[in-house]
Amino acid sequence: MDFDNTDRTELSQLGEFGLIKHLTQHIELNQESSVKGVGDDAAVIDNKDLQTVVTTDMLVEGVHFDLTYVPLKHLGYKSIVVNLSDVYAMNATPKQVVVSFALSSRFSLEAVEELYAGMLLACKKYNVDIVGGDTTSSLSGLVISITAIGTAKKEDLVYRDGAKESNLLCVSGDLGGAYMGLQILEREKSVFKGNPKLQPDLDGKDYILERQLKPEARKDIIELLKNLEIKPTSMIDISDGLSSEILHLCTQSNVGVELYEEKIPIDPLTYDTAREFNLDPTMCTLSGGEDYELLFTIDIGDYNKIKNLPDFSVIGHITNIAKGQLMVAKSGSVHELKAQGWNPLLKK
Amino acid sequence: MDFDNTDRTELSQLGEFGLIKHLTQHIELNQESSVKGVGDDAAVIDNKDLQTVVTTDMLVEGVHFDLTYVPLKHLGYKSIVVNLSDVYAMNATPKQVVVSFALSSRFSLEAVEELYAGMLLACKKYNVDIVGGDTTSSLSGLVISITAIGTAKKEDLVYRDGAKESNLLCVSGDLGGAYMGLQILEREKSVFKGNPKLQPDLDGKDYILERQLKPEARKDIIELLKNLEIKPTSMIDISDGLSSEILHLCTQSNVGVELYEEKIPIDPLTYDTAREFNLDPTMCTLSGGEDYELLFTIDIGDYNKIKNLPDFSVIGHITNIAKGQLMVAKSGSVHELKAQGWNPLLKK
Repeated sequence: MDFDNTDRTELSQLGEFGLIKHLTQHIELNQESSVKGVGDDAAVIDNKDLQTVVTTDMLVEGVHFDLTYVPLKHLGYKSIVVNLSDVYAMNATPKQVVVSFALSSRFSLEAVEELYAGMLLACKKYNVDIVGGDTTSSLSGLVISITAIGTAKKEDLVYRDGAKESNLLCVSGDLGGAYMGLQILEREKSVFKGNPKLQPDLDGKDYILERQLKPEARKDIIELLKNLEIKPTSMIDISDGLSSEILHLCTQSNVGVELYEEKIPIDPLTYDTAREFNLDPTMCTLSGGEDYELLFTIDIGDYNKIKNLPDFSVIGHITNIAKGQLMVAKSGSVHELKAQGWNPLLKK
Repeated sequence: MDFDNTDRTELSQLGEFGLIKHLTQHIELNQESSVKGVGDDAAVIDNKDLQTVVTTDMLVEGVHFDLTYVPLKHLGYKSIVVNLSDVYAMNATPKQVVVSFALSSRFSLEAVEELYAGMLLACKKYNVDIVGGDTTSSLSGLVISITAIGTAKKEDLVYRDGAKESNLLCVSGDLGGAYMGLQILEREKSVFKGNPKLQPDLDGKDYILERQLKPEARKDIIELLKNLEIKPTSMIDISDGLSSEILHLCTQSNVGVELYEEKIPIDPLTYDTAREFNLDPTMCTLSGGEDYELLFTIDIGDYNKIKNLPDFSVIGHITNIAKGQLMVAKSGSVHELKAQGWNPLLKK
């Protein structure tokens, strides 16, 4: 093969988003039914009656999960949920999934059953059908690839590119918990490696461990917004960290933003655990990722409908692009927002 | 993790189809729009106006392909084609694909560009749009997962379960070539390992090498059948080998079959190369796989429409289930058909 000898550009130089941008720059959409291609939470296909929404995610052992502390059933559950979250982020309803995995011979049938049981459990909870897939072997670790398919009326779909000046920037739930859960699991893994007789110390950390191991997709938020008769102007799910997701909305909507640090919702357990690890809790929300909350913008006229609801936080507002993407810190100082979300291409 | 300690059933005991059957036995379809789930070439989703067809395939380095002799551009091309083939096998038209891959750090941007260029080339040829995907890293080899989406009118869809007694069993093109192309590539690889100065001897083997490295999906056959006003009663694409695919049609249609060895179409180059390798050419067609031809059954009344067409071979006929699944050998002896197709779970 010549691919080791030619002029070589390392993938880590580009990062995941750089690579995707580079590869997809020459894609043309020729099918009339291809409404939306690469670049949102999901693709959109026109079926005249309903729009079909399609999204896919690949999870790789050693990169996205560590089987030394992630139970297979949880992994199966999470692998479905992260895909459904992308469908909800389009303001659509997931209906079907196709599920593929590659397994090495170290996995027994019983292990695969655990994984699959978790997938079925998630599908049952979200009322989604498994309609197909592929099962094959791998030479080393486990690879899971899932494609979720959903539907929405054309007029209900919410893209990333609709944020407008003076819109409010909102987020559901609280942030940073999944990241702190991961820190706990990583710490206990290294403690265990040092002394296998020690029992893991997970006491009182249930909430953040669950945020990491068994996240939920915010189906309830989509339903709540519908009941409130709020259609967000733009929306994205938080898989990579708040700052990265805000910048996606701003870039695609061609707007600026002012984010208020003091408004970012952080659970007390997340906050205290971050302090325990000598981490800045705000940084954990900006860069941590995997919270699978929904980040969205709404018209300022909708503010009254949500202002007293505990599930929502207004964390900023959209500005003119010329003002840039800024975070106003608790101290009052102003910082440029930078994407420091997790880059899967930097892990090797 | 407990999955190494519990009662252990090896996946290789079940094989791919056994595993899929075992895992999917408890799936219930709850969505009204889920017309067809696991068990055909593709799933079918009802969109009222058109039916949406969805299929997915995962390709793993070291299991499905060997980068020492498969050029990345060809691999990209083939990875798209094998998915489109499944859509055509439903008598549907592929329209969109989503494309995911996991890459280790040994891949440079230039290598990924080659892979992607092959994918784009296939998409252009078959007029299919890439509308999404996921790109991530792997710790070892390359993993590609593709989901293809197509459409068909409800009345045009062809499933695996419609074969009826006295139907004719037909196949497009010729068989066994992809398998013999693989044998050539494997032989040259071992020669090269023994003496890296030797140049590969691929002279005159173009056709079968192309069958292996750059297969095409039989879009033309679907169009031809439409022009001939023939709707097959059942159909499947040949990815695993003729015997395995015939048995899929028979099992799902609850019928028997009589296959005539002498009618199986084999290209002279395939035949001669099989002999060169001391292989039985018929066995190469029955068990070889990766030909991506279409295997289908038609009403006997349609025979006159196809009898003189070079693209089709009538290779047998459907019988009552009580008669079993049989092959009549050239010698006149009768054998039970057995699935000896390639089992990806036996490779480790």
